[in-house]
Amino acid sequence: MSINNLPWAMVYNPDEKKFEKTGFAHWDVSNGEVWVKIVYATICTSDLHTVSGRRSCAGPCILGHEIIGEVVACADVDDYYGHSLQLGDLVTWSVYAYDAQDEMAVKGIPQKSSQLYKYGHEVLDEDQIMSGGFGSHCLLKEGTSIFKLSNNFSYKVAAPLNCSHATVAGSLRLAGEIKGRNVLVIGAGMIGLSASAMAVESGARNVVTTDIDDERLNRSRDFGVDLVLSHHLSNEDLEIALTDIGGIDIVIDTSGSPDAIEKWISKMNIGGTAVLIGSVFTQRDIHLNAEKCVRNLWTIRGLHNYMPQDLAYAIDFMENNHQRYPFDSLVKNEFKLSDIELAFTQAHRGEDYRVGVYVDQP
Amino acid sequence: MSINNLPWAMVYNPDEKKFEKTGFAHWDVSNGEVWVKIVYATICTSDLHTVSGRRSCAGPCILGHEIIGEVVACADVDDYYGHSLQLGDLVTWSVYAYDAQDEMAVKGIPQKSSQLYKYGHEVLDEDQIMSGGFGSHCLLKEGTSIFKLSNNFSYKVAAPLNCSHATVAGSLRLAGEIKGRNVLVIGAGMIGLSASAMAVESGARNVVTTDIDDERLNRSRDFGVDLVLSHHLSNEDLEIALTDIGGIDIVIDTSGSPDAIEKWISKMNIGGTAVLIGSVFTQRDIHLNAEKCVRNLWTIRGLHNYMPQDLAYAIDFMENNHQRYPFDSLVKNEFKLSDIELAFTQAHRGEDYRVGVYVDQP
Repeated sequence: MSINNLPWAMVYNPDEKKFEKTGFAHWDVSNGEVWVKIVYATICTSDLHTVSGRRSCAGPCILGHEIIGEVVACADVDDYYGHSLQLGDLVTWSVYAYDAQDEMAVKGIPQKSSQLYKYGHEVLDEDQIMSGGFGSHCLLKEGTSIFKLSNNFSYKVAAPLNCSHATVAGSLRLAGEIKGRNVLVIGAGMIGLSASAMAVESGARNVVTTDIDDERLNRSRDFGVDLVLSHHLSNEDLEIALTDIGGIDIVIDTSGSPDAIEKWISKMNIGGTAVLIGSVFTQRDIHLNAEKCVRNLWTIRGLHNYMPQDLAYAIDFMENNHQRYPFDSLVKNEFKLSDIELAFTQAHRGEDYRVGVYVDQP
Repeated sequence: MSINNLPWAMVYNPDEKKFEKTGFAHWDVSNGEVWVKIVYATICTSDLHTVSGRRSCAGPCILGHEIIGEVVACADVDDYYGHSLQLGDLVTWSVYAYDAQDEMAVKGIPQKSSQLYKYGHEVLDEDQIMSGGFGSHCLLKEGTSIFKLSNNFSYKVAAPLNCSHATVAGSLRLAGEIKGRNVLVIGAGMIGLSASAMAVESGARNVVTTDIDDERLNRSRDFGVDLVLSHHLSNEDLEIALTDIGGIDIVIDTSGSPDAIEKWISKMNIGGTAVLIGSVFTQRDIHLNAEKCVRNLWTIRGLHNYMPQDLAYAIDFMENNHQRYPFDSLVKNEFKLSDIELAFTQAHRGEDYRVGVYVDQP
């Protein structure tokens, strides 16, 4: 059988720092498994960190975890809401499969279960399981939260749901009450724009964005942002702008920059909450004044991955708001899967919010 | 009228660093006010910080905010639960009076309302309002949450309720679910012992205490502590002890020590929460690894003062548990109010958990 008819993937080898076209076998599903034909993927910033070496990665592996696909085989599996999956269903799924009996899952932190299976991150072993987005197919294991998608919005909009938008939904969950609060989002990339729009739709009083890139900052206005704070603003003008709106109650950091995190935590109102989601690479420690944290009743929370309920929230958000905000425009350049090296080269330029990848016939 | 029959207080003058016996007038209550005859007060660590100059303080003022008293005049005022106060009721009250319409109160942070009136902290002005514990009387203003006390436990046990124990109750509220979690309390002073006992009664799996003072550490066993971790423990033995119990889920810091806070935050389990209540004086910044905070889903929260509901919780806790834990033994040395200088000298020695002060006839 030629590779044309068989599943295939662009397998990444971190030792050689390159992708290689590799053939796989079709999977016979069993035990709650779903075999999905991938229709679209986007390159997440953490994929870029892996390929640039900023994040360590064991290999070989099939990268890509912002994925949507179509069910092509399914062993009597229900979606997240308990509806049985059908062949042909367009789906997205939690970025990990977990065991609900695991101690961490029981503790309410399923995303840190001991035997976590993470799409786009697993080393290919002798089982040759397709587990990433940069391939023609993906095997969804038992313990994956699967969601049917409508065809109301484009693949470009849908692909980042199960990483970017779900993580943002998790960060807003941790931030507590958004309604009537002033929310500052650090970073106006894909995740920052998503956080801004979601904060607006959660009833924030003002949504404020800051970024070192003024062009991205201006773009954030399309995502409901009330106020943009340029990196070049003088301290005096900054204080005036903050006083005008009544300060900042909630900080969502998507940048991972210690300087930015320190600066904005120190400016939070009494009772303020900072949720950190961008610090996923090595940086210097942040400095925190514990007395200010105490006297101002600050809360600082980190979030990694997310909970299945966050993905459910993100999908609902997108169903209701995809026409209100131009998420569609955030994927401009699209590449064939067989041109994945070109796709990464483009993504590394930093000009795109997300680069799209679709499966071609190799 | 001689001072013997009139209210009086040992007024503290921070400029001269001394207390002075001062006479006051009886107060004619109106508008939700309650005039209380003080029966007992304890010297809180923050009183010590004020007198040592570690904490700045405007003056002159009547210090002392761990107080209980007896209602001697009352203008139709209800207690926290809506029951009308009667002459002769033994009461404690929130350490502050606030305006429920204030923006911060509406936000759910009454303890940071703009016109907060804080017992034991107000400068004496021309109105000569008695507002602290180191006097014969205290005026409870409208907006104070007042609680009737039973006579089930001693004054020594009751006096610290409205500061130490209520703050501890607030810290456990912020820590989230305690049941089944391992709780580490940093510092085995009055607040640390209270946190330990309260964590035990909240169903903690293991309660662990650490302190630089081994004698205090051992004493903590009387307050339900399962494991004490001496400051002198080797890193290896420490890791073994922590592994044995399954690590630390919740850290309650009562010490304010940056070294201790950093050390114990870094050892928290995934999903761990650290609540800081001890950092009420100037110290170096703590260093926090944001990547670890994110990947481990840590939460760090500061608490200052507390909410009225926390005092309600603390009183219920003490009603139910005063026989189970020797809180009574934590006040050994007691002084007459007119000997307040001696009381502070004793308290500064650091040998007592709390020093008691009772009102004598001057």
